[in-house]
Amino acid sequence: MTLNASHSAQLKSWVEAANDPLCPFPIQNLPMAIFSTSANLRKRAGVAIGDQVLDLEVLERSGLLPTGLVPNGLSPTPTAVFNRSSLNAFMALGPAVWSAVRSTISGELSKATSDWRLFSQLLTPLADAQLHMPVRVTGYTDFYASREHATNVGTLFRGAENALMANWLHMPIAYNGRASTVVVSGTAIKRPRGQIISADKPTPVFTASRKLDMELEMAALVGTANPMGDPVSVAQAQEMIFGFVLLNDWSARDIQVWEYQPLGPFLGKAFATTISPWVISREALEPFRVDGPQQDPQPLSYLRQSAPHNYAIQLQAQLNGQTITETNFKDIYWSSAQQLAHHTSGGCAMQTGDLLGSGTISGSQPGSMGSLLELTWNGEKPLTLENGDIRRFLEDGDRLSLTGYAQGEGYRIGFGEAAATILPAPSETG
Amino acid sequence: MTLNASHSAQLKSWVEAANDPLCPFPIQNLPMAIFSTSANLRKRAGVAIGDQVLDLEVLERSGLLPTGLVPNGLSPTPTAVFNRSSLNAFMALGPAVWSAVRSTISGELSKATSDWRLFSQLLTPLADAQLHMPVRVTGYTDFYASREHATNVGTLFRGAENALMANWLHMPIAYNGRASTVVVSGTAIKRPRGQIISADKPTPVFTASRKLDMELEMAALVGTANPMGDPVSVAQAQEMIFGFVLLNDWSARDIQVWEYQPLGPFLGKAFATTISPWVISREALEPFRVDGPQQDPQPLSYLRQSAPHNYAIQLQAQLNGQTITETNFKDIYWSSAQQLAHHTSGGCAMQTGDLLGSGTISGSQPGSMGSLLELTWNGEKPLTLENGDIRRFLEDGDRLSLTGYAQGEGYRIGFGEAAATILPAPSETG
Repeated sequence: MTLNASHSAQLKSWVEAANDPLCPFPIQNLPMAIFSTSANLRKRAGVAIGDQVLDLEVLERSGLLPTGLVPNGLSPTPTAVFNRSSLNAFMALGPAVWSAVRSTISGELSKATSDWRLFSQLLTPLADAQLHMPVRVTGYTDFYASREHATNVGTLFRGAENALMANWLHMPIAYNGRASTVVVSGTAIKRPRGQIISADKPTPVFTASRKLDMELEMAALVGTANPMGDPVSVAQAQEMIFGFVLLNDWSARDIQVWEYQPLGPFLGKAFATTISPWVISREALEPFRVDGPQQDPQPLSYLRQSAPHNYAIQLQAQLNGQTITETNFKDIYWSSAQQLAHHTSGGCAMQTGDLLGSGTISGSQPGSMGSLLELTWNGEKPLTLENGDIRRFLEDGDRLSLTGYAQGEGYRIGFGEAAATILPAPSETG
Repeated sequence: MTLNASHSAQLKSWVEAANDPLCPFPIQNLPMAIFSTSANLRKRAGVAIGDQVLDLEVLERSGLLPTGLVPNGLSPTPTAVFNRSSLNAFMALGPAVWSAVRSTISGELSKATSDWRLFSQLLTPLADAQLHMPVRVTGYTDFYASREHATNVGTLFRGAENALMANWLHMPIAYNGRASTVVVSGTAIKRPRGQIISADKPTPVFTASRKLDMELEMAALVGTANPMGDPVSVAQAQEMIFGFVLLNDWSARDIQVWEYQPLGPFLGKAFATTISPWVISREALEPFRVDGPQQDPQPLSYLRQSAPHNYAIQLQAQLNGQTITETNFKDIYWSSAQQLAHHTSGGCAMQTGDLLGSGTISGSQPGSMGSLLELTWNGEKPLTLENGDIRRFLEDGDRLSLTGYAQGEGYRIGFGEAAATILPAPSETG
């Protein structure tokens, strides 16, 4: 994929708000979501432009979009993909269609001579749109691909001498997460109960987690599938990726530390995972591709990449409105393309809608760590917020928000927000 | 659920083959599958009776089945559930409908005065039926609930002193598996490649697994869902279970041992999982409920069960036609109901189509272990087959088959077969 007209910093939209250099949704972005409005409760696909949502269902029905080209010619009915409650049907169509649709929308929203008065009837103010889960998540895999995070957590859980395990520099380590509890930003998160062991007692109790944590991650969404038994290369994997979202891998550290041996994280992370509603296309991020950290030792051949597959994306987490960490996706050790290629390397089938969490993204500086576990060093060094509140982990009523953007010349590719408020645990009657 | 007429040992069918005491599909069984025939390629639901398959799509259309009762009254069209390519829609209807449908089918296949000549037009010989995946697997969780297996594997991977970890007797340990590669019996399994480390080399190589193993398991299929944030009790969990299948959790031990720390099994098990095509309903297994092993220490209250939830099911594995292990599901330490209740205990949402592998079922006797890893003690004690072949792990061309049955008085509840042949790994060009 190369840079084209849709990336030009000079490109402007007749939707004026999109031309503000700080607007998260300029014409260079064009992220997709599933939305509804009070006037039309049907869930359908939309594109953000400035302070508006463009209704893709109506646009597709008008015949303006090239989705009908595949696979049944121009007949719009059998192949309509934007009248669904998820983006999966569109995602399955593949990179050529993704790109053609982006190009069409970009053209319509920018051309000076467009019949934009007609077109503007397809726009709804963002403020009036309810955003839903953008995809039907068919599988959720969470990687562990930040060297800084793996080193920090390894030190806390196993001591400095066992921090980074022998396999870590050779492959992107991951576990299968729980797809059924991936929810969209704004969904409240109930504090989980679980088995927790105290240092001073030999047996666990079943109680509410006292170490509820966030994990700041990016996630790649798989668009096109590979059949079982057919691994893909890193270059092929990159082409399979439809786009990216922000992801908060909520973690109950006290449940996790008791249950995770020997089979890995389970209920400590199964209660909820939050993603942002806007899917930023891979094409929109093309100008922000950068080399990742140098990989030493050199990866085995099936993991080698001949092009940069990292992305420079500024990320931050806010707790009750105050920034508690700032980091960047560019520092992740294993790229999403490497993660996906590794995932298929033994023959695992990937499906449209697979969600690949990058792993918590921690930088090397203080204040750049992607979890409270690291920021407070497992509660030993509490954070003091500006209003005087002290936090080791999350408390009931806390609101945690992840945001991010890629900074272009005069424009920003914004990711919106992955946020949630913490609710108390269910009552202790179970 | 109590025993009713459909369990009576005296009950006979006018399908004569069903009355043979060794027939796996007597009228007391009535397992469901998804099938097609050369005369009708559409995938649809069927019930096995003797040597025949009863076409449930046609039976439902005739109005004889009570599926239309829920939720839209008797209108058959909007609620037809047996004309689908999976059983999920029927499974979602819940225990009252499952039981009513079983009762109707049992009555029709047994009554002496039935117009069975008409009814018999809905039967197809099993030999002419192609069996497909019975369910759309929405999530696959694999437990580790046999104490003997956990002790054996723990000894092999970590030494006898660290065999059974401190948490094991307090909770059903599990990991999330990969749902996209759960396949039906008969699907050939390609040997995976992956990163493998040798004792004499410091860095891994990417090559075909040399330690391809089976794991003999049962699996519970979740019928009804629970919402995120709402845990269920053991008794409620039992009611959510639609039925059981045989499950082979194929495992590449050399890939697994290198990748599994600290986040658990991933690609060593993601390449394939085989299930049997016939789903045995929980109701059919009601006469075979037994107490499991005594649990000491007593489980925490959310895991306590006030009724027996284990099942006496004889299981065996055959390698190229020769029995290599015999064991019984009754010996599993944590019941499927306990596993499911634990799964929800932190608020994880379970969905129709969730597959819960029991974990490898190993007995305490030699020859009753559920994996080659244990049977050959990681290859140290090879098996010699009757034809002189020697096996440490599976070789290309091997056929591995799991079978099982519950023995009633004068009849058997058969599970059919979960079998596959091993294909060579993809060529070494990746």
